[in-house]
Amino acid sequence: MSRLEKAIVSMVEVFEEYATKDKNRQLSGTELAELMKKELASPEFHGKVEPAVLQEAMTNLDKNHDGEINFREFSMFLATLARGYYRARNKGKGNKGKPDKPE
Amino acid sequence: MSRLEKAIVSMVEVFEEYATKDKNRQLSGTELAELMKKELASPEFHGKVEPAVLQEAMTNLDKNHDGEINFREFSMFLATLARGYYRARNKGKGNKGKPDKPE
Repeated sequence: MSRLEKAIVSMVEVFEEYATKDKNRQLSGTELAELMKKELASPEFHGKVEPAVLQEAMTNLDKNHDGEINFREFSMFLATLARGYYRARNKGKGNKGKPDKPE
Repeated sequence: MSRLEKAIVSMVEVFEEYATKDKNRQLSGTELAELMKKELASPEFHGKVEPAVLQEAMTNLDKNHDGEINFREFSMFLATLARGYYRARNKGKGNKGKPDKPE
């Protein structure tokens, strides 16, 4: 399996690992908190994602307001985090037509 | 770094690897085709994702219709693929209130 396929499989596996406590297999708020504490807290990663991005991702999480996070919501959450990480990596590289400095 | 953080980093790295040929660092149609051929073609993965899901993901790809795929569009594409993979894994496990059989 390629890196990208492994990445997709990991997204699914982590969700399932934390979401199995309920019979409907969704993430409760407590389960999400636990997941974030254990799976999204490395300084190498966390330090790259701006707090505002995390806030945006959290706000959008429970889109259907049922108090639980289903895999669709979780996948969008990860996509938002990935965009935050991408932006942080590319800061100053002149993306989006707003170059800070030439490479 | 956790599995999930590595997954997010891989998403960004793969995009950057294939998108570097243009000066605006987006994926052209040709680059996307190359990426899919090399990074999303393992039978273990590909066989799990239904063609309809891939079709849905592709249709939504170039949301802003500029002929290029930016990282935002790519992240949504991967989220769609992840949902397809999740659904395939959970088929028959009684998710979404439509159980095929008890576990």
